[in-house]
Amino acid sequence: MGLILITGGARSGKSSYAVQLAAESRRRVVYVATAEPLDAEMTKRIDQHRAERPPSWHTIEEPLHPCRAAREAAAPDSFVILDCLTLWVSNLLTDFDSKHEPAAAPARSAALEDLQCLRDLPTDAAVAVVTNEVGLGIVPDNALARAYRDLLGEVNQELALRADEVQLMVSGIALRLK
Amino acid sequence: MGLILITGGARSGKSSYAVQLAAESRRRVVYVATAEPLDAEMTKRIDQHRAERPPSWHTIEEPLHPCRAAREAAAPDSFVILDCLTLWVSNLLTDFDSKHEPAAAPARSAALEDLQCLRDLPTDAAVAVVTNEVGLGIVPDNALARAYRDLLGEVNQELALRADEVQLMVSGIALRLK
Amino acid sequence: MGLILITGGARSGKSSYAVQLAAESRRRVVYVATAEPLDAEMTKRIDQHRAERPPSWHTIEEPLHPCRAAREAAAPDSFVILDCLTLWVSNLLTDFDSKHEPAAAPARSAALEDLQCLRDLPTDAAVAVVTNEVGLGIVPDNALARAYRDLLGEVNQELALRADEVQLMVSGIALRLK
Repeated sequence: MGLILITGGARSGKSSYAVQLAAESRRRVVYVATAEPLDAEMTKRIDQHRAERPPSWHTIEEPLHPCRAAREAAAPDSFVILDCLTLWVSNLLTDFDSKHEPAAAPARSAALEDLQCLRDLPTDAAVAVVTNEVGLGIVPDNALARAYRDLLGEVNQELALRADEVQLMVSGIALRLK
Repeated sequence: MGLILITGGARSGKSSYAVQLAAESRRRVVYVATAEPLDAEMTKRIDQHRAERPPSWHTIEEPLHPCRAAREAAAPDSFVILDCLTLWVSNLLTDFDSKHEPAAAPARSAALEDLQCLRDLPTDAAVAVVTNEVGLGIVPDNALARAYRDLLGEVNQELALRADEVQLMVSGIALRLK
Repeated sequence: MGLILITGGARSGKSSYAVQLAAESRRRVVYVATAEPLDAEMTKRIDQHRAERPPSWHTIEEPLHPCRAAREAAAPDSFVILDCLTLWVSNLLTDFDSKHEPAAAPARSAALEDLQCLRDLPTDAAVAVVTNEVGLGIVPDNALARAYRDLLGEVNQELALRADEVQLMVSGIALRLK
């Protein structure tokens, strides 16, 4: 199965599609979550996603190094869901933003370093990575938002290049791009 | 022909494509409009869309229950255009927002209830529903805007699941997703 | 090769794809740039794009009439990249915004007039035009931003209609729409 990238807009069915692939694989599922329940809205969204998953699935919370965690969980009998790159890149920028000025360069280095972990996966591994397309609206006013969409765009391109399969979700329908 | 969902970004040719399908069907056309001319800009946009339509087409203005109106207009000799879900969901949120706090839950209930009307359409019906993809930009700052894109995303998924045909418009070109 | 339209979100690999097509053509490359280095961020982005291009390529800076410049550079032995419509439409609106109230109508006239230059290209010409999809997010609060996405959407539709080939870039992958 290899590396599968699932991209698309907000509420386009990306996570549900990853969950469906995992269930169909009949493998042991490991869920690598990058979301942190920092406020009520995020807590609610995390709970909604969790309710879609069977309780037997193992969840690893890894806001800063999810690719390494996914690599470690990849095995011939496992199906790993990494959900999602979008929040991971946001976590990195927020993490460096509190320490550096500007955050874009160190966040980019950290992102590209962690991404290396998903190169050269064994062919019998199954890793589905969920991300978002965030660059199809008007240019944001906010400089950090622009840095964010630039970095996420670069991360998505890098993963799509490595992936064995890329799916674009639109209104719950998967369109295979690769 | 059944149920056709036409989605895409702003100014991607969605309404024009619906109008073209209606004209080609050579059926009697019923246009269910959800837009309300609340300001000058909206009035202008409504007038532009109206100018694209032959005067013989029957227009029904139904800002809150467009699916019911479309269901009632569906017949073996009619082609119904419902344009669009985007403004309908906005109308519902605005309507409840003035009465409730928060608006998301009651608007969602109202949306899902009206959507039921488009289940189990007769196979000889022809209903084209226009909607928008609004979730491919940066996460909006505004909580109501986030509730809006979540609800519209869910509505789009629900309709795409029921639809016999789903078209994604990009720069005026229709890409068939289903 | 004719007229090729390359569209997609920010950081989806549009310019790189145009550069790749140009390199593969083994023709003499003319790069028509619409970007103006008005601030540090834009200067950096322009420099990044320039670094991807071989120094032998000829660059023409044409912020207001890029289609005319592309038409003049089109020849049986040249490959013209026009990068990009997005900044061109922004330049037009900004240019008229400082003189007129509102800017949308004169900017639209100027855009449609310059676009005429890309009609009826000789079949042995090769012109790749880069643009952006900006209408797949939440409706912008700002009236000028709404006018911008309306006008760019119309320009994209007009070019896609004339184009011999239309590619949608998603995460660095080209999806052929036409």
